[in-house]
Parts: sequence; structure tokens; C-alpha cells
Amino acid sequence: MTIYGAVEGGGTKFNCLVARDKDDILAEVRIATTNPQETMAAVVAFFDEFEQSHQERIAAIGVACFGPVDLNLSSATYGCITTTPKPGWVGAPILPPLKERFDVPMAFEVDVNGAAIGEHRWGAAQGLTDFVYYTIGTGIGGGVMVNGKMLHGLMHTEMGHQMMPALPGEEYAGNCPYHGHCLEGVATGPAMKDYWGMPAEDLAPDHPAWEREAEYLAIAMANTVCMLSPQRIILGGGVMNQLHLFPMIREKTLKYLKGYIQRPEILDDIEAYIVPPGLGNYAGMLGALAMAMGAYEG
Amino acid sequence: MTIYGAVEGGGTKFNCLVARDKDDILAEVRIATTNPQETMAAVVAFFDEFEQSHQERIAAIGVACFGPVDLNLSSATYGCITTTPKPGWVGAPILPPLKERFDVPMAFEVDVNGAAIGEHRWGAAQGLTDFVYYTIGTGIGGGVMVNGKMLHGLMHTEMGHQMMPALPGEEYAGNCPYHGHCLEGVATGPAMKDYWGMPAEDLAPDHPAWEREAEYLAIAMANTVCMLSPQRIILGGGVMNQLHLFPMIREKTLKYLKGYIQRPEILDDIEAYIVPPGLGNYAGMLGALAMAMGAYEG
Repeated sequence: MTIYGAVEGGGTKFNCLVARDKDDILAEVRIATTNPQETMAAVVAFFDEFEQSHQERIAAIGVACFGPVDLNLSSATYGCITTTPKPGWVGAPILPPLKERFDVPMAFEVDVNGAAIGEHRWGAAQGLTDFVYYTIGTGIGGGVMVNGKMLHGLMHTEMGHQMMPALPGEEYAGNCPYHGHCLEGVATGPAMKDYWGMPAEDLAPDHPAWEREAEYLAIAMANTVCMLSPQRIILGGGVMNQLHLFPMIREKTLKYLKGYIQRPEILDDIEAYIVPPGLGNYAGMLGALAMAMGAYEG
Repeated sequence: MTIYGAVEGGGTKFNCLVARDKDDILAEVRIATTNPQETMAAVVAFFDEFEQSHQERIAAIGVACFGPVDLNLSSATYGCITTTPKPGWVGAPILPPLKERFDVPMAFEVDVNGAAIGEHRWGAAQGLTDFVYYTIGTGIGGGVMVNGKMLHGLMHTEMGHQMMPALPGEEYAGNCPYHGHCLEGVATGPAMKDYWGMPAEDLAPDHPAWEREAEYLAIAMANTVCMLSPQRIILGGGVMNQLHLFPMIREKTLKYLKGYIQRPEILDDIEAYIVPPGLGNYAGMLGALAMAMGAYEG
């Protein structure tokens, strides 16, 4: 049976695995994110050692990495990080060191697109052609599929930086260092902490913080419906582990849309329209695996 | 040479033409938009009479119609208007009466998507795979191409209804009957009239109204960059005939993005990134022709 390699590259760790399928994982490793040379050498070594010790060849590799990254296949820096506030990682080559060692089909994506691909293959977006996967945690990102393919365009989306109107009576300037009051500036875990003066995880479920959080996320949902017309929206990430947010976000999304989009999928079945990820916190890792399988299938 | 039929269906008139190509138009007609039966009968009769009098067959027909419309090929109401405030037009069949009379390939789109397709074939979006075409006039709509195909998703986009933050010090509630302070609620011609108390066309070029208009449109541009990652944004429609808006919108878009999206296409070449339509006010009509040609080419 074919075996695949997968890399989920994050700011604090690189998760790697070798697997035959989602439920048939052969080896796993967590590598600390230090500098690009050291980190990527350890990633290559992990796959290398697997091949040596198992006397089996990896057939394809999928890499989903923190961004911004260069997804343009015809670019000289394809597969590299572009700009990032992370010291030492500006321009870091992620795919090139793997390509140098392994001559197999590879797929490369920004992290949240990888998670979306995982949800499409095995999770809450199975069978859909158009959906959005949001991750809401210390940052906010979104992966968008349109007509069955990931949206890249000029680069990739930066869903966390859509501008947010202020809630009535609120004068908070937002904590995004670039845009102030964008979605990231008001609705990440750190933005909640900045606004309420305590960590989001310490706020009781009946604290008004969650009502406010749901309000901003619902505005983002309404924008997403109007600007991307998805068949479904998946909300993952650390903040969304607070499952009591879901009914609040659904109700408020309907409030903001005000019946303008007359589709039964929204008006009659909002519970199936705004949903948690099917793969939970594994969407990123399994997404990279799904990308490898997709690259192999061609 | 192959001949094509094209229909641009609007709220006040249906423009129809028969043409061999963009610069080879054989017949044209404007039909007043009355009720669906009468209007569509006149559209069918126009093509019918052309075929009779010229003894030539139309090879394909493209229809770009005001919406919301049903673009789902597998739906029973494909090619029909869905909901609309326009009396008598809820559920109106647009494509079906044409299909009943002509057995040729047809393409159907919401009006602004048709204009985008025209811009892609002959206008300011030639050679691009990912772009957004906005029309800003009495309403605001947007057509989105992703990976070379129009974005439909659940329905089609409603770009005019993205929520807008208020400009500093402004307390205007917006005039969108659904959402108040969405893009349509602050930036259409009628919204300008509502805010300033006089028609937009009577406002001098140095009136602060244009500064404010450019400000809101720039917020929409920044949202569009973050949520759709287009290679270019085309701004058409009556309001954008005020060409002095373009440099203001470009400058303010850079202000709102604050250097976050580090792409030379935006940072170094904003004049080529936010542009007027190549087809001017003919984008809609020619878009329907481009759709017919695309349907024929398969």
C-alpha cells in the first residue's frame, strides 16, 4: 500500500507523520521550530530515517505551513515563507529542502488551507465544492475552496484582517498591530484578553465576553456569506473549543443577514451551515496528509 | 462565421444583440422591462426574427440578468430569478423561454458576473485567473473569478452587503433597507444623495463627498484583498465614471492595508491593481456575448 509523508509547519512546532491513510499512521514526530535550516533538516531526516528503517519509499509529501507563503508554482520562491514577524524565518525555504532530497509529487499550502483540504476529504466539508474554514485562536485565518479548488489568487486570503464595524457603544481600538479594529484585532484569544483584562480561558460561559465574541464573529460570518457565497462555514481553532459560541454565532449571523440571502441552507438549516470541524484539532495535520494523497492521485 | 445571441437583462431594460464578435454586431434591440412574460417573449421574438430574416442560425446564447438568480445547474429553477423586490419578477423564468425555442448551448449568469466575463475576455482582466469586478452605481455588486472560473458557491456573491465600519466621527446609519450600514448603505449613488442631501452628479469634484466615498470604497478594497486575494480589482458602474475617485481609492486602500500584504502588485503598482473597466459601460452587454462564445466553445 502507498505511504505518504505529511508536514504541518507551525510557529512553535513542526508536526510530521508518515501514514498509509487517515487511520493508519506509521510514524509521527514533533520538531521544535528553531531556525529554518535546523528545523527543515530535522523534517527531512525524519522521512529519511523512516525510509531507511522500513525499506519503503514515501510516494508523495504534503506540507501545510504557517505563512504568509509563496504558493505561485511559477515563482522562484515557490514553497518558501515570504514575510513573517517571526525572527529568522523571512524567506525561509520550506518545500525546497524536501524537493532536494525526495523526488516525489508534493503539495504545498498555507496552514489553514491545509486544514480546509483535510476537512474536505474527511471532515465537515465532504462533498462540497465551495466552503470556508476559519481558525480562530491566537490569530485568525481562513481557507477558501471555490469550485472544488483552493483559492490562492495573488497570494492567499488573510481572512483575519477584514475590517470590523464597532459594536454599538464600544470604543475599543482593537489590538491588531497593522489594522487595529480588524477581525483579528477584536476576536482572537489575545484580543479578548486585551479587552477584558483576563485570559479568555478564565472567562465563565455566562460572561458577556462570549456574547461580544459571537457578535463580532457573526459579522465576519455575514461578510463571508456575502463575499464568498460558501455552501458551509467551518469554525475551528482554540477559541471555538468553547462550543457554546456556536448557537450564539448562528443566531447572530441570521440577525446580521436580515433575511437578505434567501437560501434554505441558511434560513432553515443554520445548524448545518455554521459548524465545528469534523477533524477537530487534527484538521491541520490530517490536511497535510490529504494534500500528499491528492498530489499522488494527481 | 458563427453568430451568437446575447441578453443583458436589467431592471429597466433588456438589451439584446446578435453578433459574430465584439466588433461585429449584426443586430441590437432594447426591450423595456415590463412583466416577465411580455419581456421574455420580446427577447425570444428578436432572436427569432433575426434567424428568419437572415436565414442564419444563432449558435449559442449568453444571458446575464439582474438577480438574485438561480445559477445551480441541477436546480429545477435554474435560469430563473429567485427573490427580488421588483414586483412580478419573483421566480421569473429567464432562461427557460429561450431554451424552449432554441436548442443551442446557453450560458446564464447574474449581471455583474457577465460583466466580469466580458472584462476577462476583452477588457481589464485579460489573462488573469483571479479578479473581482465591482459595479458601483444605484446598487453595488461584484463578480468574482477564482482559478479561471466564476465564483457561484451557494448562490452568487452579494459584495454590496459587506458590513462597513463607520468613519471616525460619522453617525450616519446607512440607507440599505436590510443592513443599514453595509457598503450599499453608504456608497451607492442614492446613499450619497441621502447623506449629502443632493444628487451625486451635482457634487463638485472637490466636494468632501468624494473623499468620503473613496474612504468607504477603500475599506471595501482592503476587505476584498484580504478575503479574495484577487490579482486585480476592476471598478465600474455610474459612480466610478467620476474618474478622480481612482487615485483617492488607491491611496486610501494602501492606507487601510498598512503594508500587511507584501506583494509588489499592490505596494509598487497600485495603478494597475485597482483599475476602471476596459469595456467601459459595455461590459455587461459584451459580457453576455462573451458568455455565448464561451458556451459555444464548451
